[in-house]
Amino acid sequence: MKLQVTQENLNRALGAVARVANSRNTLPILSNVLIKTTNNRLSLSATNLDIAITQYIGAKISEEGSITVPARLMQDFVSSLPAGVIDLRLEDSKLHIATDQYKSVVNGIMADDFPVMPEITEGKSWAVDGASLKRALQQIVFAASGDESRPVLTGVYMHTLDGELFVTATDSYRLAEKSLGKNSQDVQVLIPATAMQDLLRIVGDFDGEVEVTHDDQQILFHAGDVDLVARLLEGKYPDYRKLIPSQFAVSATLKKADFVNITKVSSLFARESAGSVTIHVDEETQQVSIRSIASQLGENTATASAKVTGSGNITLNSRYLLDGLQALTGDEVLFGFNGKLEATLLKDTTHNDYSHIIMPLKS
Amino acid sequence: MKLQVTQENLNRALGAVARVANSRNTLPILSNVLIKTTNNRLSLSATNLDIAITQYIGAKISEEGSITVPARLMQDFVSSLPAGVIDLRLEDSKLHIATDQYKSVVNGIMADDFPVMPEITEGKSWAVDGASLKRALQQIVFAASGDESRPVLTGVYMHTLDGELFVTATDSYRLAEKSLGKNSQDVQVLIPATAMQDLLRIVGDFDGEVEVTHDDQQILFHAGDVDLVARLLEGKYPDYRKLIPSQFAVSATLKKADFVNITKVSSLFARESAGSVTIHVDEETQQVSIRSIASQLGENTATASAKVTGSGNITLNSRYLLDGLQALTGDEVLFGFNGKLEATLLKDTTHNDYSHIIMPLKS
Repeated sequence: MKLQVTQENLNRALGAVARVANSRNTLPILSNVLIKTTNNRLSLSATNLDIAITQYIGAKISEEGSITVPARLMQDFVSSLPAGVIDLRLEDSKLHIATDQYKSVVNGIMADDFPVMPEITEGKSWAVDGASLKRALQQIVFAASGDESRPVLTGVYMHTLDGELFVTATDSYRLAEKSLGKNSQDVQVLIPATAMQDLLRIVGDFDGEVEVTHDDQQILFHAGDVDLVARLLEGKYPDYRKLIPSQFAVSATLKKADFVNITKVSSLFARESAGSVTIHVDEETQQVSIRSIASQLGENTATASAKVTGSGNITLNSRYLLDGLQALTGDEVLFGFNGKLEATLLKDTTHNDYSHIIMPLKS
Repeated sequence: MKLQVTQENLNRALGAVARVANSRNTLPILSNVLIKTTNNRLSLSATNLDIAITQYIGAKISEEGSITVPARLMQDFVSSLPAGVIDLRLEDSKLHIATDQYKSVVNGIMADDFPVMPEITEGKSWAVDGASLKRALQQIVFAASGDESRPVLTGVYMHTLDGELFVTATDSYRLAEKSLGKNSQDVQVLIPATAMQDLLRIVGDFDGEVEVTHDDQQILFHAGDVDLVARLLEGKYPDYRKLIPSQFAVSATLKKADFVNITKVSSLFARESAGSVTIHVDEETQQVSIRSIASQLGENTATASAKVTGSGNITLNSRYLLDGLQALTGDEVLFGFNGKLEATLLKDTTHNDYSHIIMPLKS
């Protein structure tokens, strides 16, 4: 292998793939990044066996070849180099890296030992707008569970219903669902939330169409010059749609900024109660107020004006309430609930494609 | 106590003092901030017994009084409130805080129990330009030791020599000294570096004169509407001046940015050797180069052009070298050394008021 590549391209590619290699790995080669010439381009790949990311970049290739080198070192090293042309040359399993000022030799491991995820040969293919996918993932992925004892809830559920594509995540205490509009294919896949976080990072500045291909085992997202493959999760996703309330005994419409502020302030006095706050919705005064009492610190009442129908109290985790409010896009929010143990709903008043539900705490 | 204050002023004052209260304290009242009406202004104070900070702010006072309240809660709470007027009212030992939207009661502890540092009644007074003091502290304070087993080295030494004021810090592996020019008084004080870090934070945007008063026990820095009092450290500071070399067997003058870059890149290959790198200065090629070899990872040689007199090698901790280079203000640096075990010097070629020395490692 012998080639020239710009520091900017190499640095960008390492930034895209290295995080996957850096995650705690048992096989030493998984800490490496695979560098490989492919059809007059250079590909950089990393994998943790559940997720694999490949970034393609332009390069001036004199000799084909491939090698794996430590991802962390390579990323730190290349990001420290000045902008400009870098010469890469492989001798035995040593990668020689040279610029005017710097000459390095990095010890590699032969590429033959690098695990490659199987290709998806027969599967469904469809496309989705990159910017919409990114926005949707930002609004839902934080609601997935981090608890490995219920693996299904550590996933993001991507599925169609009457031809409409939805992405959903829940940790059983709160749930977020976003519509991505009509879709050409029937979809029913459960993707690790960690893979979706990587996808978010990768599609950061990507505005084109993301091409999606999947079979029963894996899913491939192709976004410009990056490929992300993830192993699908097994198991049946909860039938959550019946939980989303559409009628409310009590509902309030208020400015999102106001709701965020009174929740933040109240949560400061809710540390003794692990963040639990009680929200009072009052039809007579047309106000939403949150009262929190801490025996040690003191007490607080925070109030915001609202358009209110019905009166009642509900107790929520203030952290979940803030997460939910901050995931909403518009300036005005609808907050509705029924019984003390039934799911509450947060929704934009102007966008109907996103629902966020939070289960109440016992008060 | 009854008064009105703006959220902006109260928030700024809490920001200035709360950090001192938040540090690990054994007496519960030390986690509190003292709020007190003083001559038509409001003062907020916090202390950890070694350092005390007081910030004065404007307020509309209807009734005099004082109280202490938990600093962390108060800071988080006030920073969450919207800009505008806040009403403060004391009833028994409860502080009532109210705006249009928020009503809080914070449980306080009576101010009588709050420890006050003794006043400096007889001492020396002098003044120093705030911006110069800030710059000087930024250039030296990081070189102080964090190791409590040699308390003298955890201090910043502020002293005059032939009427010139110097600030110095060392951890015995490296030393930084900055001149602050002529001073009206004879000074010889050893101030905890932590207090100097607090002072740095406080004089952040302050451009006026800092008035300094000290006796044998304490030092007071008065900067605009903030007072910082620190208990002085005892003990004899090392007689360091004879360590600073002025003649060199080997010296190199090069661009600071180049020296920083070759050090950074080399340090990546120096992890096995705890950051130790060997610097080669070569008169014949007029180059400074750093070579590092890691048995596992590979090896690296990084080179920069320089104006060189004499040739030789010296081994330094790359972390200390980077710290020293980054503390220099100019674009060009003089690097000089003599024997393998003698102190090396880093200096701006254009500023003669700052010296940074680093002790070499055995190579």
